[in-house]
Amino acid sequence: MREAATPRTRGRARPGRLRRGERMVVMAHRLLSHPYQLFSLSTFMELLGAAKSTISEDLGFLRQAFDRFQLGKVETLAGAAGGVRYLPQMSRDQIRALVEELCRRLRDTARVLPGGFLQTTDLISTPHFAAGMGQTFATLLGEPRPDVVLTMEVKGIPVALETARAFNVPMVTIRREGRITEGPSVSVNYVSGSSRMVQTMTLPLRAIPPGAKVVFIDDFLRGGGTARGVFDLVREFRAELVGIGVLIETAVPKEKMADRYLSLIVYEGVNEHGEVLVYPSRHV
Amino acid sequence: MREAATPRTRGRARPGRLRRGERMVVMAHRLLSHPYQLFSLSTFMELLGAAKSTISEDLGFLRQAFDRFQLGKVETLAGAAGGVRYLPQMSRDQIRALVEELCRRLRDTARVLPGGFLQTTDLISTPHFAAGMGQTFATLLGEPRPDVVLTMEVKGIPVALETARAFNVPMVTIRREGRITEGPSVSVNYVSGSSRMVQTMTLPLRAIPPGAKVVFIDDFLRGGGTARGVFDLVREFRAELVGIGVLIETAVPKEKMADRYLSLIVYEGVNEHGEVLVYPSRHV
Repeated sequence: MREAATPRTRGRARPGRLRRGERMVVMAHRLLSHPYQLFSLSTFMELLGAAKSTISEDLGFLRQAFDRFQLGKVETLAGAAGGVRYLPQMSRDQIRALVEELCRRLRDTARVLPGGFLQTTDLISTPHFAAGMGQTFATLLGEPRPDVVLTMEVKGIPVALETARAFNVPMVTIRREGRITEGPSVSVNYVSGSSRMVQTMTLPLRAIPPGAKVVFIDDFLRGGGTARGVFDLVREFRAELVGIGVLIETAVPKEKMADRYLSLIVYEGVNEHGEVLVYPSRHV
Repeated sequence: MREAATPRTRGRARPGRLRRGERMVVMAHRLLSHPYQLFSLSTFMELLGAAKSTISEDLGFLRQAFDRFQLGKVETLAGAAGGVRYLPQMSRDQIRALVEELCRRLRDTARVLPGGFLQTTDLISTPHFAAGMGQTFATLLGEPRPDVVLTMEVKGIPVALETARAFNVPMVTIRREGRITEGPSVSVNYVSGSSRMVQTMTLPLRAIPPGAKVVFIDDFLRGGGTARGVFDLVREFRAELVGIGVLIETAVPKEKMADRYLSLIVYEGVNEHGEVLVYPSRHV
């Protein structure tokens, strides 16, 4: 919180005799809670009452600790417009460990509902899993950094919010119907890939600025009809869909109505022994 | 991520010559990403290859930096079951600054929609605001720490997720209709305080364990009918509603169907000059 953070130090500027460890912890906290935001060295000089050379040295050790323990990337940009910023990147090992843990939990047969549906809401809504999924999508989708993270109500929202948090950009939720509390809106029809039914998705007119780069995050992809509809919707805003991330895709149908999406987990169904067939996707 | 965090240090145990600042940053990162979780000193001794006395000293400096810069509370618990944990508490000043910033943005007349509705979704869905709101609710609701954070689809989800993240407990979303992908569920009818219409809210049977302490978070409270319905729903689970937090309450009606709720902002309406009347509530 850029604005709300100010009073934290009001009346306590230039604290003087801070130790290096204390300075490093304060900088780490600031960087971690503002991913992608560039901080000039003078911000930290003022906040911590330290010389530029001291702050530079502190940041060197900070970067070293982040690298060594794989806590994400601390980037130093040189020059007049330079500074330091934090990108919450996960390592391949960390991503793989998270996805395997999710698969392990999804194999619980108590999750299988009539029709072969898989109950996943509890995992998506557990903050540390949601945060891990969000950081995973931010890592794998990476460049270009989007201006907006888009999702479809309701289940995808926690993962989308955490992806937006990792990118430090707003999240926007597509509704299945227009709401009077949202103002003027744009709607498109789409064909749900699984049910073949025509449905409507709606987004407030002000939600996406023209030319914006958009990432779409959802919990589940079966036929890809929703993703296809999102593509059409984003085009109506003259914005650009630069990435699609889904937590789980189904193995069937093999041909999806969307391409260039990224999934973490593949769900194949339930076999004759009642086992839930889920495994990490080719993207992780 | 308890489980997913393990590989971060695999193959790099006992790194040996870490500096104090590096150890402090690694501990700060671990504590910040796992609020309320108690870490034994031996966890950090193993992770950082340092003696108990060293880790204790590091934690002393860490706590000092967190206190001095109001980054939240680092609590050390003594004894055999002891250790250290982080509570993401905000100061009164920080809460006040956040709420005033939100009020300032809400006063934008472009937010007023037909019927006097206020467009708030963009604020709720901006990660740093959502995180601030969640940490505010976690601070103000405080004790007892809930087992579950409950919300009503759709708009309250980001704030509820961030509250759940601050408490490090699962979030559960009440749906307006049952979903086949959620399994057996419990429904109650409630009277929407504003429209006086009877509606239904539904929650999966497994979502809340009996005896659980529950906090309900929502974006808006007008008549309080939804909060009243949530009270009834939670009772059906033989769980206990220990707190209600809403981002905005309306000044009218003055008498709500719910009591003992906590709001951050009061919305009085739009006056004859077209000004949006919002101000910090008595709770902040």
